[in-house]
Amino acid sequence: MKAAPYRPLDLTHGRIDLTHGAGGRASAQLITGLFAAAFKNDYLDQGDDGAVLPAPAPGEALVFATDAHVVAPLFFPGGDIGSLAVHGTLNDLAMMGARPLYLSASFILEEGLALADLARIVASMATASRAAGVPIVTGDTKVVEQGKGDGLFISTAGLGARPVGRSPSGRGAQAGDAILVSGALGDHGLALLTARGELGLASTLTSDSVALHGLVEALFNAIPAAAVHVLRDPTRGGLATTLNEIAHQSGVGMQLIETAIPVNPQVAAACELLGLDPLYLANEGKLIAIVPAAQAAAALAALRAHPLGQRAAQIGAVTTDPRHFVQLRTPLGGQRLLDWLNGDPLPRIC
Amino acid sequence: MKAAPYRPLDLTHGRIDLTHGAGGRASAQLITGLFAAAFKNDYLDQGDDGAVLPAPAPGEALVFATDAHVVAPLFFPGGDIGSLAVHGTLNDLAMMGARPLYLSASFILEEGLALADLARIVASMATASRAAGVPIVTGDTKVVEQGKGDGLFISTAGLGARPVGRSPSGRGAQAGDAILVSGALGDHGLALLTARGELGLASTLTSDSVALHGLVEALFNAIPAAAVHVLRDPTRGGLATTLNEIAHQSGVGMQLIETAIPVNPQVAAACELLGLDPLYLANEGKLIAIVPAAQAAAALAALRAHPLGQRAAQIGAVTTDPRHFVQLRTPLGGQRLLDWLNGDPLPRIC
Repeated sequence: MKAAPYRPLDLTHGRIDLTHGAGGRASAQLITGLFAAAFKNDYLDQGDDGAVLPAPAPGEALVFATDAHVVAPLFFPGGDIGSLAVHGTLNDLAMMGARPLYLSASFILEEGLALADLARIVASMATASRAAGVPIVTGDTKVVEQGKGDGLFISTAGLGARPVGRSPSGRGAQAGDAILVSGALGDHGLALLTARGELGLASTLTSDSVALHGLVEALFNAIPAAAVHVLRDPTRGGLATTLNEIAHQSGVGMQLIETAIPVNPQVAAACELLGLDPLYLANEGKLIAIVPAAQAAAALAALRAHPLGQRAAQIGAVTTDPRHFVQLRTPLGGQRLLDWLNGDPLPRIC
Repeated sequence: MKAAPYRPLDLTHGRIDLTHGAGGRASAQLITGLFAAAFKNDYLDQGDDGAVLPAPAPGEALVFATDAHVVAPLFFPGGDIGSLAVHGTLNDLAMMGARPLYLSASFILEEGLALADLARIVASMATASRAAGVPIVTGDTKVVEQGKGDGLFISTAGLGARPVGRSPSGRGAQAGDAILVSGALGDHGLALLTARGELGLASTLTSDSVALHGLVEALFNAIPAAAVHVLRDPTRGGLATTLNEIAHQSGVGMQLIETAIPVNPQVAAACELLGLDPLYLANEGKLIAIVPAAQAAAALAALRAHPLGQRAAQIGAVTTDPRHFVQLRTPLGGQRLLDWLNGDPLPRIC
């Protein structure tokens, strides 16, 4: 009796079947032939149940973050579920003030998924991971029957090291602080809605999905580490929901100036047409930074000097407000309460 | 205008809907009211995009592992997808020789999932995590439309610290080494198949799902750390596939004695009836240890002295074999090649 030979994966016409998740030879082929080949690095090549990694430098704290990614469609203008899964977790680490070090990736594949699509997504993850300088060091793959998934889902987890002195947190906002954003809002959410064809709208809009840790390092290099009170990326629920979360966590209010909030003209026009509010649309390449008013100019200059922060702006200030309201001053001088996202779910945008 | 009040989660009759994944108020309610309440610990309570954690002791290596869990049915005799998700990743860390420190959990929920079922699963995860002494420190939740998932999927990632001197690896087996298993094989796989009702078979079989890091520490306390050449938990694909992987990675062969391999009588009888081989069935609470022959007796004694290793046995030896075959000596003196799992997929058993 002789062990069956490896059949090569057919990356052109092949499809995922249940054997790819059963732990036998087909699983090994998929892992070796696709994932390990694309993500190749010394840690992943260890080939064990997990990766053994050098610990961070003495005194640095570990930061651990995770994200599930279920975006639909899998491919959209400006990215795909693979690049988004890498960027999403890198950005969670960056918003904690950490330098991202390592990523894990866990895949849930639906029977029937074209191997060509999977290969394209895996290549996109590999490219995003290499561009960020953060290797995917360990992973797992499962397969579910057709009709029990939706192509594929990717959960990424990330590990980072936070240098001494940094402690940005949603609990860090103080009355008087300046509220900055790194660029125009709503691009990702609107690009996704457009790509789904739900809006009956064609556009050239692309997602802003990108890794923000370089921009964060530029900010920390420009002002004292302790002055970065809050860092957050306004993903699901958009700027409005993220600011409400921060106001709630920090026990403060916020006062925003509507005309100061950068929104791309194409996004503004589409939102106007469709009755959407760009402040509730998801972003995947923008950050909110809250810093003391005295550091706002230096922080803004640092953000604007970076390619990913050229349109950075101060959009408002932190206030004392026991109700923790986020309020918006409109162009005509009115006040509008910017509540949490409540109805109108926009699911599966990340 | 006034912010809408929090509606409490209806954990008795409520169901997951798309707003629970949209990042707004309903998402926050689910996270605060269910996940954060059940998993409660200081790290998770930080409430940021990730958890800030103390780094391991100087000189210890970090170990990072991840697993996707798609087991069907969600509840089975001896566990559920929640306890399995905790045990699975703890065991991956333990098989690397690491003390598990922290877990992350990422949930993909299907619209319509009963909140009562989710609460039961989350409580089970919390219990498993507390029993193991390893907190769930960060997480994420997404929701997909009905028909695009299957109740819920859980991806866990884990972080551990590996003490100096330990280096178990699938590449570590050496000719002459003893191959040990910690107990009877096939319980989890057969319990799952029975629970699915696919076999037309009723039984009192329960999964062996359990966290193995205590058993691993007992082993490391009994023999020199460097003598633990390989540690693996034979999950998907069972003992046969896992040993083939190790033989391949280490460039060795293996010779097993069929009568030495522990299998519970109920599992043996059901396998006989159904034409299944217990050596290909998944386990979630057993380990394979490969150690030098001179350490086998001490290692076996240590395993047997632990509640989770009472039926530990030496089942064979590592051989020199350029073909990397795993061979089985049958009771009648014949030889049978134990190949990788090839056909007959048994998906969604973990």
